[in-house]
Amino acid sequence: MKFGGTSVATIERIKNVAQHVKREIEAGYDVAVVVSAMSGKTNELVGWCKEAAPLHDPREYDAVVASGEQVTTGLLAIALQAIGIKARSWQGWQVPFETDDAHGSARIQKIDGTRMLESFARDREVAVVAGFQGIHAPSGRLTTLGRGGSDTSAVALAAALQAERCDIYTDVDGVYTTDPRIVSKARRLDRVAFEEMLEMASLGAKVLQVRSVELAMVHNVRTFVRSSFDNPAQPMPGTLICAEEDIMEQPVVTGIAYSKDEAQITLREVADKPGVAAAVFEPLAAASIVVDMIVQNVSADGATTDITFTVPSADYARAMDVIEKRKAEIGYKLVQSAQEVAKISAIGVGMRSHAGVAAKAFKALAERGINIRAITTSEIKFSVLIDVAYTELAVRTLHSLYGLDAA
Amino acid sequence: MKFGGTSVATIERIKNVAQHVKREIEAGYDVAVVVSAMSGKTNELVGWCKEAAPLHDPREYDAVVASGEQVTTGLLAIALQAIGIKARSWQGWQVPFETDDAHGSARIQKIDGTRMLESFARDREVAVVAGFQGIHAPSGRLTTLGRGGSDTSAVALAAALQAERCDIYTDVDGVYTTDPRIVSKARRLDRVAFEEMLEMASLGAKVLQVRSVELAMVHNVRTFVRSSFDNPAQPMPGTLICAEEDIMEQPVVTGIAYSKDEAQITLREVADKPGVAAAVFEPLAAASIVVDMIVQNVSADGATTDITFTVPSADYARAMDVIEKRKAEIGYKLVQSAQEVAKISAIGVGMRSHAGVAAKAFKALAERGINIRAITTSEIKFSVLIDVAYTELAVRTLHSLYGLDAA
Repeated sequence: MKFGGTSVATIERIKNVAQHVKREIEAGYDVAVVVSAMSGKTNELVGWCKEAAPLHDPREYDAVVASGEQVTTGLLAIALQAIGIKARSWQGWQVPFETDDAHGSARIQKIDGTRMLESFARDREVAVVAGFQGIHAPSGRLTTLGRGGSDTSAVALAAALQAERCDIYTDVDGVYTTDPRIVSKARRLDRVAFEEMLEMASLGAKVLQVRSVELAMVHNVRTFVRSSFDNPAQPMPGTLICAEEDIMEQPVVTGIAYSKDEAQITLREVADKPGVAAAVFEPLAAASIVVDMIVQNVSADGATTDITFTVPSADYARAMDVIEKRKAEIGYKLVQSAQEVAKISAIGVGMRSHAGVAAKAFKALAERGINIRAITTSEIKFSVLIDVAYTELAVRTLHSLYGLDAA
Repeated sequence: MKFGGTSVATIERIKNVAQHVKREIEAGYDVAVVVSAMSGKTNELVGWCKEAAPLHDPREYDAVVASGEQVTTGLLAIALQAIGIKARSWQGWQVPFETDDAHGSARIQKIDGTRMLESFARDREVAVVAGFQGIHAPSGRLTTLGRGGSDTSAVALAAALQAERCDIYTDVDGVYTTDPRIVSKARRLDRVAFEEMLEMASLGAKVLQVRSVELAMVHNVRTFVRSSFDNPAQPMPGTLICAEEDIMEQPVVTGIAYSKDEAQITLREVADKPGVAAAVFEPLAAASIVVDMIVQNVSADGATTDITFTVPSADYARAMDVIEKRKAEIGYKLVQSAQEVAKISAIGVGMRSHAGVAAKAFKALAERGINIRAITTSEIKFSVLIDVAYTELAVRTLHSLYGLDAA
């Protein structure tokens, strides 16, 4: 079980978490609970580090911020004992969660669950585990996994313990076919394939960290997304994220994602020769600008082509600056751009075995007068770039088109 | 060097601490700095534990409260690096400070300073050490030393590293001949013997934890008490607490201490037979009431005697309750008590070699009309119990009498 910062923000909520754990113990499970820092605490600690020095040693940053989860583990263990459940806290270095030494964004290398499994076998003691943190064994220094790392801690621990499942408790009750705030007929999905969840996570449906979904996929950890605000005695089932083959009746499209924070840049009449893409994208990468969609069509005249790409809105001005300064090296004729664009994506592993899925969408959007600026596709998703004003209309159109509307 | 909670209460103050450390580094010393949690943090953490469950597992309490010092170590290391001083944080379990498993009030058993000394030798890296905490090695669980434990951490580490000295920075600039708030002529002492400091610490001069002074005495750690609010570039010398033989011209009396939070209880006509003292004091101990002064005079009639003792004012009502309930077992005739009493003590290792030191005091107090209710003496101090209204007059009288007044 994993509970995030909002679920452990107060002692009252920590007591509620204890009730969720109690239910699983009474159902006969051995339980490890991974917890984040109390909501707001990590920001406070990060703020102090910055105040002490804007550029600070990431090893010391890790020592400071790892204290947040330590507090929560002790408090939840106390709350569990108070309702008659055996429990103890485990810090990252106690388990241990061994990581590399990339302080501030360390990667887990090895988890030794032996002692935890012994304590389950001995007296069914609940393991309350600090998420987000680990230890670099050669130096003995504390490490953290970076923001959202507690999801990753939970999935990695579930894999190490060969857990039957990993329940990620959050402030929503599952993964939806699309954002319920803009489509009232959005439905909670019972099951989503790992690959679909990966696309949804990276496309803006902020339920789970991308890293944790990758890890769950690699180790085939059956992961539930459920709500910590449910009545602990009668929780909702949530959404199971699992292997594709565990989903019997796979719909063609599982969900519609969107992202409004996009800006589009198009280079006209770029010389169509080897190395030109590198000339465009290497300087952007050097400036730490993450490029998302890239569209380059086959040259019509054999000499020049157009390249379109998107960047986060926040990086638009810097990206334009890079492109304009590099005009001579890249050798384009004209740069056109649009800041008010949105990316709409349809995701579904069923696309692999169905033809014409995207074509249906192009037709439906055209019928509603929505102009498609650019298109990209992969095996299990396609994305279109449109004017931001049409975002909601486009999402609703595709949601209905692929039969996702609730009855 | 050791800095308490008020000295590290804000990032600004932590930066000031860094300047103190820098001065010592520039003077050529290798430095270990022991820090407490930011002022108020430990209370917040303790409050959360109580809210989670009034009776809580002390092992989990330790995990929660030990996080406070962890934060400070990282922040001070960052502040030191920002001014060009090599530094790293050391948690109790990293050094390690090995303790017993008396969670919440653990005792240090062993400190391995090998790696710290290596880091001094290699590149003069400042060790920023979490005070108050340790690890119970067999279980791998975090422990804390109890309130004020950071002083003890500092002295113990100084002993383990065979440090030249241990500087305890606090909010006063040293140890005084008496409380400057009631005697304007009180003087800062340049040197105090360990034995004297022990008496002063336990008699109400709240500068250093008693445990840390005991430890300094056993390991002969030269300990300075100095102010963290001095200008770091030109600090005041403070008071050196050292072995008696390091003090050349030992005055007969070094300081006058007082305690107003005393209540006196006198049992009249107690049977003068073996076991009667136990009958009085065992039930008080069982009720966790700390008895301070105990006076029992030689019986006049050979059959009965009077027993007088003092307890903290806060425990007065409970103590009277215990005594009255046990009247039959103890077998006294009458109980008399006074709540408005104060204990005045004069301390000095020089008393060992001077006769009549106390007698002078009795005479001086009598001349000012101060009635002495009870007297106890030891090798290096004597204490008198008087009406609380005469506290200031008595302290000033003895301060002048023994030549302690500033010129």
